[in-house]
Amino acid sequence: MSITTAAYAVPSPTDPLAPWTFDRRDPNPSDVLIDILFCGVCHSDLHQARDEWGGSTYPMVPGHEIIGTVLAVGSEVTKWSVGQTVGVGVFVDSCRNCENCKAGLEQYCDGGISGTYNGVEQDKVTPTYGGYSTKITVDQNYVVSIPEGIPLEGAAPLLCAGITTYSPLMHWKVGPDTRVAVVGLGGLGHMGVKFAKALGASVTVISHSPGKKEDSARLGADDFIATNDPDAFKNNAKRFDFILNTISADHEYNDYLGLLALDGVMCLVGLPNPTTVAAFPLVGRRRSLAGSMIGGIAETQEMLNFCAEKGISSDVEVIEMSYINEAYERMLKSDVRYRFVIDLASLKS
Amino acid sequence: MSITTAAYAVPSPTDPLAPWTFDRRDPNPSDVLIDILFCGVCHSDLHQARDEWGGSTYPMVPGHEIIGTVLAVGSEVTKWSVGQTVGVGVFVDSCRNCENCKAGLEQYCDGGISGTYNGVEQDKVTPTYGGYSTKITVDQNYVVSIPEGIPLEGAAPLLCAGITTYSPLMHWKVGPDTRVAVVGLGGLGHMGVKFAKALGASVTVISHSPGKKEDSARLGADDFIATNDPDAFKNNAKRFDFILNTISADHEYNDYLGLLALDGVMCLVGLPNPTTVAAFPLVGRRRSLAGSMIGGIAETQEMLNFCAEKGISSDVEVIEMSYINEAYERMLKSDVRYRFVIDLASLKS
Repeated sequence: MSITTAAYAVPSPTDPLAPWTFDRRDPNPSDVLIDILFCGVCHSDLHQARDEWGGSTYPMVPGHEIIGTVLAVGSEVTKWSVGQTVGVGVFVDSCRNCENCKAGLEQYCDGGISGTYNGVEQDKVTPTYGGYSTKITVDQNYVVSIPEGIPLEGAAPLLCAGITTYSPLMHWKVGPDTRVAVVGLGGLGHMGVKFAKALGASVTVISHSPGKKEDSARLGADDFIATNDPDAFKNNAKRFDFILNTISADHEYNDYLGLLALDGVMCLVGLPNPTTVAAFPLVGRRRSLAGSMIGGIAETQEMLNFCAEKGISSDVEVIEMSYINEAYERMLKSDVRYRFVIDLASLKS
Repeated sequence: MSITTAAYAVPSPTDPLAPWTFDRRDPNPSDVLIDILFCGVCHSDLHQARDEWGGSTYPMVPGHEIIGTVLAVGSEVTKWSVGQTVGVGVFVDSCRNCENCKAGLEQYCDGGISGTYNGVEQDKVTPTYGGYSTKITVDQNYVVSIPEGIPLEGAAPLLCAGITTYSPLMHWKVGPDTRVAVVGLGGLGHMGVKFAKALGASVTVISHSPGKKEDSARLGADDFIATNDPDAFKNNAKRFDFILNTISADHEYNDYLGLLALDGVMCLVGLPNPTTVAAFPLVGRRRSLAGSMIGGIAETQEMLNFCAEKGISSDVEVIEMSYINEAYERMLKSDVRYRFVIDLASLKS
């Protein structure tokens, strides 16, 4: 069965995205074929398209925040049926045998996950292509259900930005007694604010853009700290129990660690360049600098159900596929509140 | 009441220690006067004597691993009586009013602890002088009891090296299912091995000195990794749940973080210079880089009781007071297994 798929691909690190047509891999009996409706535009799409992390392979079809409808199912598929609304996130497979996979923590698979794009299937050979395309074939175990009630365009970013922020908040048991700071109000940060608030925490946004104060309140934050205030770090020392740090740009960890109370944790969910850490801010208040990466399949489903229950989705700007190169340029200027989402209907007409 | 005290003091950052006589501060009604029997020699004594951390004040009488006998008690002292064997650790007072003090975490006092030496009392004026001396006056609430059965010279280092390693092992719930690595086999590290083993953990020593392998086994470690083996970090990747990092010298955190399994924690108890940390080792396995500082008074007592129960004390080399300058030089060469302890009888004769 040949699954001809229209897409936008990057031919090389220095080229813009352009239309490309390719055949999806032959489906397995346990595969689901998905008609893609929406795909979020993650900053990591841009990093990988331009090979900023190294190791990119081309042509690349980015996109790992995928919402679609089940078009067909393989003979062994038991979990899904044609017509269901489903999602696919950052990975489409993992080894399934390691301790982490067995514990539902597939994102930390010891054998290595199969990234939804710019990766390889578990045969370690077949390249994967992402959601800037009309169709995708995914094993049934790596698909999640989109509960009714979440607007589909606002659901797409939940598959990466959503789970990336939800998972650490759950892991570090953020709740009504937690004083949370969210550093950076972008695609990840705005989801962090919504989740932390829905979990009952008091939430402060820390941003270098004073202009985001109003929006921060609209999203539910209780307080706002602008880091361009020279006294910001001194005046807020030892104030927070948990800092969700969503910044990928270089910044001074030690300043932010100083904002943590005793036993406070600052969790990185972005990937800044290696940064200098002083021992004393950690030792002097038993603080931790930690990291967290997306979430497992079961937790992604849990997060989606939580979103439906709490009325949470991502704030998005829906774009046509052909707008993607402009969207990348605007993303570089943080000119998006808070996620571009491609309407794949624009690639089907 | 004048309490004339013989001591060894450092007159300036560039001078060696030399005999000095001074009057201890006037005792308060809640004070205990202690006849000092033994005092451990901590590496931080040397750092502060030579003003390597800045802010040192002189003359300085170092020493914060103090064992002694109660000589006299003030009119309001209820906890201690003359003749008891007691200990004094890294601090002799704290604000007593902040949240941390009230929680028995005086080491993290928001008002600032009164260091046993090179510090000031809570009046923020009266200088403190440490245990390289014959007597000390300490408030009854900052004194601990030395249970019977621990050799007194081996008990002295428990007041700093002991509690500094015991506290994080307890905080991070090290037990029979924990795979622990202790980085650095010195004064702190050798206590870390003993405690982790007594808590039932499997314990691996990681050292740059292959010559410490045998001693490591004698101390109870199950395994030994020499970091001069170029494949050491690769071969032991993702192996440990908890790393007790006792090194104060500069070293590459990222290498050690790679040794942690999912959700693993590396806890610094030394104070290396600011060090570069990459985000991916943290994010990619939800690891944490943390720190911990000594312990509170109640936990120090708990640790001493644990030592008595388990037959744990420090491996020491007892020296006379006059040997201290040589001891410092040998300490700089790591030529001590594992702690110098001054027998203060040598200053009384």
